[in-house]
Amino acid sequence: MREALSEARQAAARGEVPIGAVVVVEGEIVGRGHDLRESLCDASAHAEILAMREAAKRLGDWRLNNATLYVTVEPCAMCAGAIVQFRVRRLVYGAPNAKSGSVDSILDIVHQARFNHRVEVISGILEDECREILQKFFRELRNK
Amino acid sequence: MREALSEARQAAARGEVPIGAVVVVEGEIVGRGHDLRESLCDASAHAEILAMREAAKRLGDWRLNNATLYVTVEPCAMCAGAIVQFRVRRLVYGAPNAKSGSVDSILDIVHQARFNHRVEVISGILEDECREILQKFFRELRNK
Repeated sequence: MREALSEARQAAARGEVPIGAVVVVEGEIVGRGHDLRESLCDASAHAEILAMREAAKRLGDWRLNNATLYVTVEPCAMCAGAIVQFRVRRLVYGAPNAKSGSVDSILDIVHQARFNHRVEVISGILEDECREILQKFFRELRNK
Repeated sequence: MREALSEARQAAARGEVPIGAVVVVEGEIVGRGHDLRESLCDASAHAEILAMREAAKRLGDWRLNNATLYVTVEPCAMCAGAIVQFRVRRLVYGAPNAKSGSVDSILDIVHQARFNHRVEVISGILEDECREILQKFFRELRNK
């Protein structure tokens, strides 16, 4: 999660929403990402999707069955759906997201019995740090 | 929807699941896509996401507030979430998807009161043609 936080700080430095993600397989980071929606002019360029796409390319397989995705904030519906599509084994996230969180807060996309894949979830890891970097970013944005 | 079906046929010709999508703004197609999961080794390379990314790049804005997305099949959770992220105004789809449809069949991601965007939905357009191209693809796959 410290590596995901490092990705989040890179997003903040570019004026992007500070959310970061890494994909780990057998103890090794195989994909990294941070939000790049503005830089890439792409609303799908969330940290999780960029990290999973990089991991799939590196592994030569879009099935990330043995992967753990670490992300600083609870995924939105798009990213939770992508986690199911990439068949990620385990999701570890930091802070909940009351506005769009789709793993625990508003919807639960990763445990749907009717989908063809379900995901193990661990939450609250480095929650304070993951929340504070976001709160600081939005506080500074409002002050501008 | 005929243009989306044409995209779906291009997917089938490459051995990809035959689902196609186009994004239309003011009567003009600004983005096109068909499933390329295997070709790109990317489980997020669904027709809808590729079409919306192309449209956002072309328009220079990730907000597709004035866009209609036409797609041959009801979007999955990832794509329904992406439609919300790209703030697409209207979704028009052909055939329902009982296994992963996340607009009407299993979940309803595009009308969540707590998300910051909701989408107008029209379904059942050229439904038979959209379903048949998929059924034919999977029938042939099983026969191989």
